[in-house]
Amino acid sequence: MMLQFGGVTMTITVAGTIGIDTIITPFGRADAVLGGSASYFALAASYFAPVQLVATVGDDLDATLLNPLERRGVALTGVSHATGPNFRWGGTYHLDLNTRDTLFTELGVLAEFDPVLPPAARAAEIVFLANLQPDIQARVIDQTPNATLHALDTMNFWISGMRDELTRTLARVDIVIMAEDEVRQFADRANLRAAARAIMDLGPKVIVIKLGSYGALLLDHTGHYFAAPAFPLDDVRDPTGAGDAFAGGFLGYLAQALANQGALTMTDYRRALLHGNILGAFACENFGVERLAVLTNTEITARYRELIEFTHIGASDATFALA
Amino acid sequence: MMLQFGGVTMTITVAGTIGIDTIITPFGRADAVLGGSASYFALAASYFAPVQLVATVGDDLDATLLNPLERRGVALTGVSHATGPNFRWGGTYHLDLNTRDTLFTELGVLAEFDPVLPPAARAAEIVFLANLQPDIQARVIDQTPNATLHALDTMNFWISGMRDELTRTLARVDIVIMAEDEVRQFADRANLRAAARAIMDLGPKVIVIKLGSYGALLLDHTGHYFAAPAFPLDDVRDPTGAGDAFAGGFLGYLAQALANQGALTMTDYRRALLHGNILGAFACENFGVERLAVLTNTEITARYRELIEFTHIGASDATFALA
Repeated sequence: MMLQFGGVTMTITVAGTIGIDTIITPFGRADAVLGGSASYFALAASYFAPVQLVATVGDDLDATLLNPLERRGVALTGVSHATGPNFRWGGTYHLDLNTRDTLFTELGVLAEFDPVLPPAARAAEIVFLANLQPDIQARVIDQTPNATLHALDTMNFWISGMRDELTRTLARVDIVIMAEDEVRQFADRANLRAAARAIMDLGPKVIVIKLGSYGALLLDHTGHYFAAPAFPLDDVRDPTGAGDAFAGGFLGYLAQALANQGALTMTDYRRALLHGNILGAFACENFGVERLAVLTNTEITARYRELIEFTHIGASDATFALA
Repeated sequence: MMLQFGGVTMTITVAGTIGIDTIITPFGRADAVLGGSASYFALAASYFAPVQLVATVGDDLDATLLNPLERRGVALTGVSHATGPNFRWGGTYHLDLNTRDTLFTELGVLAEFDPVLPPAARAAEIVFLANLQPDIQARVIDQTPNATLHALDTMNFWISGMRDELTRTLARVDIVIMAEDEVRQFADRANLRAAARAIMDLGPKVIVIKLGSYGALLLDHTGHYFAAPAFPLDDVRDPTGAGDAFAGGFLGYLAQALANQGALTMTDYRRALLHGNILGAFACENFGVERLAVLTNTEITARYRELIEFTHIGASDATFALA
């Protein structure tokens, strides 16, 4: 099921959340469905590489909610089963789907999450620290000293409330993946490129900036800059998890390229960014993980070709109707 | 001074405003400087093609304000000198430079503007109707029946207040150039691609959607789609006029391609979109028209190469530092 060309594979470990989500959009609602950053990331990455999922779940989690992850071959041995209620999140989207109100966030067992990675998760070449308390992210880094790449996501809550802890954890990763407003907030600069440089000065060599429906940017510490527009959708049904699916597509593609070639070029990073945009867009096509869970490699490849066509001048030379 | 490769040139006529602007940003202010949609457009387009400017000015306009236009060879025979105060606009930008408050808009002689085009302006191959009352835009179309391309810009004020008039004028042009929020407002649809289709159903074969600091989109009635990220700037000093400079770069490039080749391909339109982004970015680098007025062809060409490098995967294959 993976887009695998060689015999080698590179494993990705993701540490994050498995949530029970309630999602309300102008087009409908979904109650008590599979959610959480690790779920979205793992499903997206599963099309490119073996994935080890590290999270904690409560005793009220209906085990069948995990079926989509199991069907995609995501390893769940790193999921700890705790006593108490599962992490739950509910949100309602406005008509334009770009803004939402959080209805509730119940941490449950997530409040006591202390990740302990099984051997296979510790052996991963690529480690993604999804949005979690920065000290918990650091404990995952402690357990994966031999990984080739560590990447980190975060959110405004930690930027404003745990800046020192976040700065320490961020200094230990290779790649930061953050939303545009969070980059500005963390660096306290309005200019995005200057803000990105300020964050890379803290340690990370690469920063990926998520622009929502506008796509994403890739910058590195040597001044490299790449911009990739989003894949345009005719129907957006539910943007929940798009950022984590983006990260799964991005790091998944890097894992695959690393497996095939043994090293990564900036061209691989650029292609990875487009794959991030593609998986992020797929996530929006249906409620929760419904679309992400049932993709095919053919669909992903076709979308990639389309996105190249949509963004590369030379891809089109048809004589035009006007003039 | 033009980027001209053949002996043929294609003239562009722009009908719009010449304003006296007061601009306040967090980085400084400019009082009573040259502004207006036609000024920004004409300066940007002047690097690609001969420009005929059609506008009206009041008797309080200091004639030296027009010097930058004259130095760039913009023909001002289509500028009518009316009795009464000139159009004046003042605005103050917020810290992020993405939002602004209008301090004042004094129409002055613009309220009585009835464009009468001199012969050279009537003979233009490409006509740009900058943001004006839709019936005034229509009177410019009446006087340019032989133009190859008519393009139109508009704003939320006409969309909400003169929808019928705007719809009639819009049906007579080939290309619409509008900001993202105006496209959604006019089509009354949240999905941008669906909104663009609805507008093209009214007549225009091409729509260009300005995304501000995110770049621009190009769509045509056959389903063609192209996305071009903005040129990233380290310092934005004043975004005033960026949209009109964008239109000047876009249509200027088309005029040049038409002169060189006798016809336009979709590839030309794509390259034109990148040139729009480049001229729009130049406009933001200094107050008012200061930067736009003193560009060189070498600077424009260098920026174009950079923007290709920033957006096209194959442009970079340097081995990367990580992994």
